[in-house]
Amino acid sequence: MELVEKMLAGDERALARLITLVERDSKEVAQIMSEICHKTGQAYWIGVTGPPGSGKSTLVDRLTAVARSRGLTVGIIAVDPTSPFSGGAVLGDRIRMQQHYLDTGVFIRSMATRGSLGGLPRAARRVAKLLDAFGKDLVVLETVGVGQTELDIVESADTTVVVLYPGGGDAIQTMKAGLMEIANIFVVNKADRPGADQVVAELETMLSLNVRNSDWRVPVLTAQAVNSVGIEELYGAIDDHRRMLESTGQLAVQRRGQLKKELIQAIEQGVSERLERLMRRDDNLAQLLNKVGSGEIDPYATAQEILTNPVIFKKWLSRLEV
Amino acid sequence: MELVEKMLAGDERALARLITLVERDSKEVAQIMSEICHKTGQAYWIGVTGPPGSGKSTLVDRLTAVARSRGLTVGIIAVDPTSPFSGGAVLGDRIRMQQHYLDTGVFIRSMATRGSLGGLPRAARRVAKLLDAFGKDLVVLETVGVGQTELDIVESADTTVVVLYPGGGDAIQTMKAGLMEIANIFVVNKADRPGADQVVAELETMLSLNVRNSDWRVPVLTAQAVNSVGIEELYGAIDDHRRMLESTGQLAVQRRGQLKKELIQAIEQGVSERLERLMRRDDNLAQLLNKVGSGEIDPYATAQEILTNPVIFKKWLSRLEV
Repeated sequence: MELVEKMLAGDERALARLITLVERDSKEVAQIMSEICHKTGQAYWIGVTGPPGSGKSTLVDRLTAVARSRGLTVGIIAVDPTSPFSGGAVLGDRIRMQQHYLDTGVFIRSMATRGSLGGLPRAARRVAKLLDAFGKDLVVLETVGVGQTELDIVESADTTVVVLYPGGGDAIQTMKAGLMEIANIFVVNKADRPGADQVVAELETMLSLNVRNSDWRVPVLTAQAVNSVGIEELYGAIDDHRRMLESTGQLAVQRRGQLKKELIQAIEQGVSERLERLMRRDDNLAQLLNKVGSGEIDPYATAQEILTNPVIFKKWLSRLEV
Repeated sequence: MELVEKMLAGDERALARLITLVERDSKEVAQIMSEICHKTGQAYWIGVTGPPGSGKSTLVDRLTAVARSRGLTVGIIAVDPTSPFSGGAVLGDRIRMQQHYLDTGVFIRSMATRGSLGGLPRAARRVAKLLDAFGKDLVVLETVGVGQTELDIVESADTTVVVLYPGGGDAIQTMKAGLMEIANIFVVNKADRPGADQVVAELETMLSLNVRNSDWRVPVLTAQAVNSVGIEELYGAIDDHRRMLESTGQLAVQRRGQLKKELIQAIEQGVSERLERLMRRDDNLAQLLNKVGSGEIDPYATAQEILTNPVIFKKWLSRLEV
């Protein structure tokens, strides 16, 4: 594909066009991904997530500055939610990143959740692969929010940084649970605010209960991104984590696992889509659906009957389109 | 099933045991759901959601008091997130509901996200059906947080109330998008705080762009749940929405659609589970997985090849266990 060749040769406009194709889930995506596949795996992927208001964008901005000062190029994917009403993206404050706009060593792309939520992690990973193949040394996946979608996105990173802040109150409390599992590094940002010590202490307590990985003790750092305080330390912690992953061989294992998961998910999704289409045109199911809809039979019990009935189930599957 | 009979006869301990069976996804679930299926559909289901800190529990508490004062019985399902670390539930402040603990007209059950996130909406809906069959007039599905799981849960309610509050800042901003789609009624709680008018105005603006349903204009109410202010108005709005749904026939359509969706999702999930088991023991896939894992081939392109290859795909499906 000419566009891929141009991109691999360093054409930034070709990169932008490929990203758009990937975002739109165009028909060329499989071909594009196949062609860049052997060029990926060079970049180091960093996931940055945390609740809204934690100052992630500023932190990513400052981290980017540190990386640039060390001669590394950076690709940033900022995933923002979309209003289903206006159809437009509630884009994050990209103005904070302005200092990097003229720097060709930094490529910034905002992605929004257009329609289907399930498709976003997939699209974000694909865009990250494009930036990886393009030759960026670091790829940062920044997500606004802490829902399942965001966790799915940052999970594919090599190192995941979770940003919290004092004063988030209940919100933080609730969100910590899901974040605990995925964080390799915690940063309590806005650490000059009252309550920062308490957030750090709480995280340390929760972490002390964890014996997940004896090769890595999840650090709890503090930062004031707006004042560029604590950024070098964060950069150092990411580097430490990277060296640990590399020296223990975990990086390769992690990446292999991620790629395998992508294959399995893609197959499952394909089968689900075909199944849904089949169900929509199946007369027997239409009858069952009506009975379920009228409350005559229970949906779960009916599903189980179908799934455990060799005649019905096999007949259905044999009719799934390829 | 004896337990179901006891429950339908009004035995609250039998109800509690059935809920536990449903939560644990025990083998009896299909039978339980089948046996109660014709007893459901009598209760009116109210979903209450919003970001943490919005005061949902207090609001539900006050709404319950109003319902009780009108002679209605209430079942409440409070869905709380779990820490994957401790394994225990970060249960909401059920103490606020204390005034109803001795009232046999109110049944309160907290549910936590144990393990699989996907299973929670299903379990919550099943518990709601149990409370419905038990004879509660109102079933309240209260969810803490605003992730996809929460939206999936409240979506199954007849009327969905979204609670926001001033001072949530960025958090609210981000969360509003997903909530706009599902809200039948907005409540700006903690309305005595500065900024409440602005939240109301913003919501009104966003709503004015929407032409979703000409039979219902989504109201934006204000409340101070702790001071019992605005509760009667909220109760009235829920009643208005209910009357609209009933008189236009939309209630029946909505419920039928929900039941059908449950059947289709249950079938899809069953097929996915079987597919995953099959993939785990398939030698050809093991080879492909290794190639994908080593970066030799791209996962998405490989999945598409499998899905569009009649030989591989049909062979696989024919081996799916029933």
